[in-house]
Amino acid sequence: MTRRTITINCDMGESFGPWTMGNDIKVMPAIDMANIACGFHASDPMIMSYTVGLAMQHNVKIGAHPSYPDMQGFGRRHMAMNVEEITQMVIYQVGALNAMCESQNTQLEYVKPHGALYNDMMSDMNVFEAIADAVSCFNVPLMVLAQPDNQMVLDIADHYELPLLFEAYIDRAYSPNGQLVSRSEAASIITDEDDILNQAYLLAHFGILKAIDNSDLALEADTICVHGDSQHAVDIIHKLRRVLNDTKR
Amino acid sequence: MTRRTITINCDMGESFGPWTMGNDIKVMPAIDMANIACGFHASDPMIMSYTVGLAMQHNVKIGAHPSYPDMQGFGRRHMAMNVEEITQMVIYQVGALNAMCESQNTQLEYVKPHGALYNDMMSDMNVFEAIADAVSCFNVPLMVLAQPDNQMVLDIADHYELPLLFEAYIDRAYSPNGQLVSRSEAASIITDEDDILNQAYLLAHFGILKAIDNSDLALEADTICVHGDSQHAVDIIHKLRRVLNDTKR
Amino acid sequence: MTRRTITINCDMGESFGPWTMGNDIKVMPAIDMANIACGFHASDPMIMSYTVGLAMQHNVKIGAHPSYPDMQGFGRRHMAMNVEEITQMVIYQVGALNAMCESQNTQLEYVKPHGALYNDMMSDMNVFEAIADAVSCFNVPLMVLAQPDNQMVLDIADHYELPLLFEAYIDRAYSPNGQLVSRSEAASIITDEDDILNQAYLLAHFGILKAIDNSDLALEADTICVHGDSQHAVDIIHKLRRVLNDTKR
Amino acid sequence: MTRRTITINCDMGESFGPWTMGNDIKVMPAIDMANIACGFHASDPMIMSYTVGLAMQHNVKIGAHPSYPDMQGFGRRHMAMNVEEITQMVIYQVGALNAMCESQNTQLEYVKPHGALYNDMMSDMNVFEAIADAVSCFNVPLMVLAQPDNQMVLDIADHYELPLLFEAYIDRAYSPNGQLVSRSEAASIITDEDDILNQAYLLAHFGILKAIDNSDLALEADTICVHGDSQHAVDIIHKLRRVLNDTKR
Repeated sequence: MTRRTITINCDMGESFGPWTMGNDIKVMPAIDMANIACGFHASDPMIMSYTVGLAMQHNVKIGAHPSYPDMQGFGRRHMAMNVEEITQMVIYQVGALNAMCESQNTQLEYVKPHGALYNDMMSDMNVFEAIADAVSCFNVPLMVLAQPDNQMVLDIADHYELPLLFEAYIDRAYSPNGQLVSRSEAASIITDEDDILNQAYLLAHFGILKAIDNSDLALEADTICVHGDSQHAVDIIHKLRRVLNDTKR
Repeated sequence: MTRRTITINCDMGESFGPWTMGNDIKVMPAIDMANIACGFHASDPMIMSYTVGLAMQHNVKIGAHPSYPDMQGFGRRHMAMNVEEITQMVIYQVGALNAMCESQNTQLEYVKPHGALYNDMMSDMNVFEAIADAVSCFNVPLMVLAQPDNQMVLDIADHYELPLLFEAYIDRAYSPNGQLVSRSEAASIITDEDDILNQAYLLAHFGILKAIDNSDLALEADTICVHGDSQHAVDIIHKLRRVLNDTKR
Repeated sequence: MTRRTITINCDMGESFGPWTMGNDIKVMPAIDMANIACGFHASDPMIMSYTVGLAMQHNVKIGAHPSYPDMQGFGRRHMAMNVEEITQMVIYQVGALNAMCESQNTQLEYVKPHGALYNDMMSDMNVFEAIADAVSCFNVPLMVLAQPDNQMVLDIADHYELPLLFEAYIDRAYSPNGQLVSRSEAASIITDEDDILNQAYLLAHFGILKAIDNSDLALEADTICVHGDSQHAVDIIHKLRRVLNDTKR
Repeated sequence: MTRRTITINCDMGESFGPWTMGNDIKVMPAIDMANIACGFHASDPMIMSYTVGLAMQHNVKIGAHPSYPDMQGFGRRHMAMNVEEITQMVIYQVGALNAMCESQNTQLEYVKPHGALYNDMMSDMNVFEAIADAVSCFNVPLMVLAQPDNQMVLDIADHYELPLLFEAYIDRAYSPNGQLVSRSEAASIITDEDDILNQAYLLAHFGILKAIDNSDLALEADTICVHGDSQHAVDIIHKLRRVLNDTKR
């Protein structure tokens, strides 16, 4: 049984200009950590500032959620940027959100890359190192995907003296090797509520998740990622919370 | 006779992606303060990072040079943004450059708005206050246009406990009331080298500049702005330096 | 009594990437003319193409809806572009939508500028001429705001052999001189359904609208603009249709 | 000996806003076909319009040069866009330039994709088909890389009734299978003038190019691509012209 409490993180601040996405006002009180978009795949300075304030109001930890520069594609399309470009691009975005935090007398607490940048970080250790390099400037942890064997990312993070936070997904399908199944595949998203809650239960109680072939994946997670844009998001998050808290009995 | 040394500031880091502007490598060693573009009218994370490093190498103070979001128009076109939009936009840009500085173990030393945003700041005190609000988060001074009467900007800056740096232009024509003549007017730019040096001499020695109608403007300047993109920019800057240093005898 | 049928036009295709705006699927069957965004204030090539197809499906005339380049501000913020910049920017956007039409074997039928560009066109005849110049390349009419005296725009349009379509708003307040009251003023939007339908009735039957001070404005309108983003948009449009058709009895 | 005249094409209109690239004024009179950027990797409406006029002045054929949306990366970074996104993005850009041509009473004569989009088109037949689909709307040919075996692209183009223009590079290294060596490799660019002219001579006289391993590639080319941004570009183009014309004796 895991001893630590598993927190709930959620992508927030993904509106843009006149366009609304998600339901941040309802979701924010239900979560522990807000991954706030930094203006490259979503958000703009007005929305970033508003979302920082909303997180503060509900005592939610603020994380920067940097991305490839791609509003139309919502940061979900891989771009062939080199590692130096990635490092500087992440510093730029995290720096912008960090300043938003300081202007409201709060502080940034972690960084979690978004979309294709997150996927590339997990599948290409050069990208991971480029991001680790960037995030180490801010003295906050980097959130990464918990995997059966985290040694490679831990070794690089050690080199940058960078703490890591490990997250798991309870509504995304995993391949047997511990990678997320690509969103382009039909079965990549778990939509059945019982299946989602069961994944959370297994993770919190036993430190495992069921992969897409029903095999067990042993994962140590600090936090799980939930999605705030479905209609019943808040309900599900409350149920998740109960399942996660159960594990501490 | 003015007692303080008048420094030389110059817009830097105004290349973008594959496009080069100016001659930063030659100009940087000749100046005291580098106004570094923040990605909204020019520059990108790679160029910002490079320019921060170049400034450090030559012991040049680093300033953020935020702008309206307008690459095509190089930030020279007024945009009707409201004050809250301006405040957050400035925090975003300055925060990004500030992080670039911290990632290279140096620090941001001031902020100077660019182009139309600079002009709007000087002609509309609501815009000035929006920018003062933003810059006060960073504990660095804001650079503004020295005018015969600076009381209005000083009062607002005091409210935000924001130090100001006053700058003068020696290659731009002034109207008799102390405003810069708009770039859209033919006589707005002083191109004759002797005229430029004479303005610098008057400013440094006597605290005055000649306005476009040849009247005297009494101005107290901490710094003068030079332009690095002309062919003889470095030569002129060296001559300016001698003129400015003369004043201390 | 006006003889011509007054058509109903509506801004469409204002989603962007992952963000949805309005309810085009429900609104499209109810309108006559779709003002389709061209990627500068909203939309992207995918959404433009989709919206062209949707308009074709419902026999709705397709208009290009070009804007200042400002996604965050949704094209509602004035930008100080010069007339040549405006002309070429409009040709670019209209050309892009025109090609979308041709690729689906249909054709562009008119152009209506959006937001701040529309306002600037009506208040500054240099901007109007810049747009007239651009639109005349496409051999389609330009939609403008019907005013008590249209002589100035008619004279310029004649010079470019450009047909005009005159539109009126039945949910926007007019000043007594026939200009739209700025959106920044509280009373600028008429929200009461009876008031909206009454404006439509007066316009269609008697060629007048009530200005904000209750004075009569004599306006000859070819089309009225409706907004598709309210919850009851389709209901109101159907009621409007009945009011407009009544006028022909 | 090839019978047809090999034309010279060159990327043009790659300045952006205040930034200049290349020397279009000097290069334009020396070339036959101008690949004009469409605002996604370079250029803007003002520069597009200007470049169309410059091409007309020198009787140079106008081609659209669409790209992935990436100004910072100059369209040289692969982006994972799906085929429908590519088709609509190409229609958008080509449509914009086409309208620029029509507004100046000239016409678009071909399309050549730029940078990473060009490379992806040649290496992924799904991308090629997405582009072929888009270009077929404009009734102009698509320019592609001549290869030892063009059957695959010809088959797809036939399906869309799309004429093709085949081009060769005389300053880029080829792999033995007829692909361009990636720009990221040191030897990808041929800089020696004699080597460049020799490639042109072989191509025009004998329909072959030397690959990077010195093997012969049999290529039938309608046009060769030259680069206008080097200092001696115009000189080299004039020499190329003589080499190409020699082949017709």
